[in-house]
Amino acid sequence: MTHDKYDLVILGGGISGYSAAIRATQLGKKVAIVEKSHLGGTCLHKGCIPTKSFLKSADTYQLIQHAEHYGISASKPTFDFPKVQLRKQRIVDAMYQGLQKLIKQKNIDIFHGEGRLLGPSIFSPQSGTVAVTYEDGQSDLIPNDYVLIATGSSPITLPFLPIDHERIVTSDDILSMTALPKSIAIIGAGIIGLEFASFFSQIGVQVHIIESEDDIVINDSQAVTERLLTSLTKNGVVFHKGIALNDQNTTVTQTEIEFELDESFTTEMALVAIGRRANIEHIGLNNTEVEITEQQTIQTNPYMQTKASHIYASGDVIGQLQLAHVGAKEGVIAVEHMFQQDPLPIDYSNMPKCIYSSPEIASIGLTIKSAKEKGYQVKSVKAAFNTNGKALIMSPDIPDGFAELIVDRSNGSILGANLVGQNVTEQINELSVLQFLNGSALELGMATHAHPSMSELLMEMGLKYENQSIHL
Amino acid sequence: MTHDKYDLVILGGGISGYSAAIRATQLGKKVAIVEKSHLGGTCLHKGCIPTKSFLKSADTYQLIQHAEHYGISASKPTFDFPKVQLRKQRIVDAMYQGLQKLIKQKNIDIFHGEGRLLGPSIFSPQSGTVAVTYEDGQSDLIPNDYVLIATGSSPITLPFLPIDHERIVTSDDILSMTALPKSIAIIGAGIIGLEFASFFSQIGVQVHIIESEDDIVINDSQAVTERLLTSLTKNGVVFHKGIALNDQNTTVTQTEIEFELDESFTTEMALVAIGRRANIEHIGLNNTEVEITEQQTIQTNPYMQTKASHIYASGDVIGQLQLAHVGAKEGVIAVEHMFQQDPLPIDYSNMPKCIYSSPEIASIGLTIKSAKEKGYQVKSVKAAFNTNGKALIMSPDIPDGFAELIVDRSNGSILGANLVGQNVTEQINELSVLQFLNGSALELGMATHAHPSMSELLMEMGLKYENQSIHL
Repeated sequence: MTHDKYDLVILGGGISGYSAAIRATQLGKKVAIVEKSHLGGTCLHKGCIPTKSFLKSADTYQLIQHAEHYGISASKPTFDFPKVQLRKQRIVDAMYQGLQKLIKQKNIDIFHGEGRLLGPSIFSPQSGTVAVTYEDGQSDLIPNDYVLIATGSSPITLPFLPIDHERIVTSDDILSMTALPKSIAIIGAGIIGLEFASFFSQIGVQVHIIESEDDIVINDSQAVTERLLTSLTKNGVVFHKGIALNDQNTTVTQTEIEFELDESFTTEMALVAIGRRANIEHIGLNNTEVEITEQQTIQTNPYMQTKASHIYASGDVIGQLQLAHVGAKEGVIAVEHMFQQDPLPIDYSNMPKCIYSSPEIASIGLTIKSAKEKGYQVKSVKAAFNTNGKALIMSPDIPDGFAELIVDRSNGSILGANLVGQNVTEQINELSVLQFLNGSALELGMATHAHPSMSELLMEMGLKYENQSIHL
Repeated sequence: MTHDKYDLVILGGGISGYSAAIRATQLGKKVAIVEKSHLGGTCLHKGCIPTKSFLKSADTYQLIQHAEHYGISASKPTFDFPKVQLRKQRIVDAMYQGLQKLIKQKNIDIFHGEGRLLGPSIFSPQSGTVAVTYEDGQSDLIPNDYVLIATGSSPITLPFLPIDHERIVTSDDILSMTALPKSIAIIGAGIIGLEFASFFSQIGVQVHIIESEDDIVINDSQAVTERLLTSLTKNGVVFHKGIALNDQNTTVTQTEIEFELDESFTTEMALVAIGRRANIEHIGLNNTEVEITEQQTIQTNPYMQTKASHIYASGDVIGQLQLAHVGAKEGVIAVEHMFQQDPLPIDYSNMPKCIYSSPEIASIGLTIKSAKEKGYQVKSVKAAFNTNGKALIMSPDIPDGFAELIVDRSNGSILGANLVGQNVTEQINELSVLQFLNGSALELGMATHAHPSMSELLMEMGLKYENQSIHL
């Protein structure tokens, strides 16, 4: 059947899509989401939330092993993986229920099927009518004024390592497996690979990381990279860098995967985490004027508008930072732009980037290198968390990590920051607020911070830039 | 002997005094500190740092007891109090060493004795020369241009409950005792009393809190108070409110303390935590024009200057917020004012206030009540952490607590905030930065926050004020 016209139809009910939908209802618009799987998408079901639940369980396991450092006697704990999975699922289910309730409250219509954009027709002179096909073969047509493509991304795979969901897996599979492997090869040292390396190595699984680049570089910072790699190495992770896997050096046998790389080794499981590709296929883009970049992502302007001015795209499918909060922001900007709310254009240098490894990593804005490339005169201030009282209190021994501020010499404003340490995925939000307000190092330093707190270090660094720090 | 003249002599080497000293050296001044005990003062040796170390150990003990919620099997842990004391001391010692090194690097002279202000004499026409008396009876005279009084505060005691440092104790004694009592009466439900109630009840000590006021009110907020009191009650803490202790209803026997209050009960130990009085005695104030308030604290202007214009005072001795970071700020402002650096006057509504209980409590700025009294049209936004994904991940079950923003209706700027929950003593710093920059609810909401993070809740609340929140 052909439905009444919607103001906005969104392809994909992940965090970018549903955030956009809710924002549109706040503007009084009639909105539909087409989702072939579950509302909440990768972030809720296969990404941010389940992986962080895993990592919290691994952290707890580690903490108990170090309990004596806090004056607590405890016997060796057991990592009960089926229970860890159950906990993860409880959390995901609770959030999923909350989200479904929210979407219902907002009167957003959900079409549970596959959506595809149609070209112009005699009924609709402009492209973009959405055809939804259901599992039973039935279909619907949804005319609309605007479309937002928020179809997300999928793991990239390797032809000679076909995913069997048991031994050769993607991150999706790990989130539903029932038993831990004794050893795992993680192919790709991106965010996903590093988080899983942290997870598995914390709970005693032998981890090999295989990276095709000669050097692993996290957040464009040598110091950040070294800090995390040192920590992972200490936990037994073995790195194999500058190695392109192929069907010669990688053999899948009945029971294991054999690697002939810089050394020969076998693992019980291989996690393919070499990146995610935008989901641009089978959604009818060829029926529209939407343009595709060389990287096979949808091209947009800074308001998420494609070359077809009534079609927008946001989230992983436009292939920018591929982070949940960025996708949400992009979705909101898209809606505010299509409905004349005059939003600020997206500014990727104001987006926090986090890795929930142990220690945690967080960054925002420009690096020293990228700031110099943009013509800034920069000065950086760096300090270690081992000088911070709260960090001493929170850590089993010497606190991990450091913080680094990149400051514009011309006016003292903060251009970027790198943080490594406990809880920095929370601390980075303070710097995000500051950077959004174009705050300066001095303003960061003059804002009184609670004592003791870990972010006192940020305050001291702001003061340090002005030679006014007390403790640094 | 009489020393060469100093630019600044500081009475008291606590966080307010030493922060002031370091700031003065940055301005090229010759500075001395007179300290009768240890550099670092109450905060480092008897306050912030050791108590938070205790609380972290108690949190760890609790976490292990709830480990199964995270999918970890662990046997019942033992709280090994002597080891908890050792850990606390290791942390204090490490920070003390760091501080001593810092003070030495800055060429600040330390006089280890009792300091006293002298009146005008034929050698010094203005009051303020500092006489230092040492343990061996020797003494020195330190002439100066400026004096900063940062002598801190001491626990107030009760005449019918004389402190014996074993059964009738102050917080100082608890930090050095070797065995835990089975039960303790905590007299006074202020920050110190509530933190110790949280600590003792988390590790299985029976706690009674005795408060003279009819109602315990934390941060002027009924909701915050109820949340913490519910938690403490759940952990077995018994509250006795509106009761003035006296020598009739309180009896100290050989082995216990007997209370005849709303009910009869005995405890093994009593902690007197009814407040702290400013250390204004025996420092020669009568030789100066320094004025004392009715509350027996030193009167200053917002630049910490006393009625004697060359004598300043900062920290607990001026009896404002009696928090370490506030004392440090006051000390810095004092120095910047005396040496013509044109500082901003102190603004106590920009100071975070924290209680490191479980759940943690943090607030900043005005409450709804105080904002209305000041003539603001206010609107508050409140949300619970149980709607936040990271909070779900970090908590053993349903996340504790909530956040509340108090917003000025006229321009949307944030006037204050109340937070209760895990890690809020860190989150409050983000709001401190925002408030220092006169940020608005919308600006808080538009600053992208990392997903998942607990302070996403603050972002959502900022957006909620403008009816733009996605998840609330």
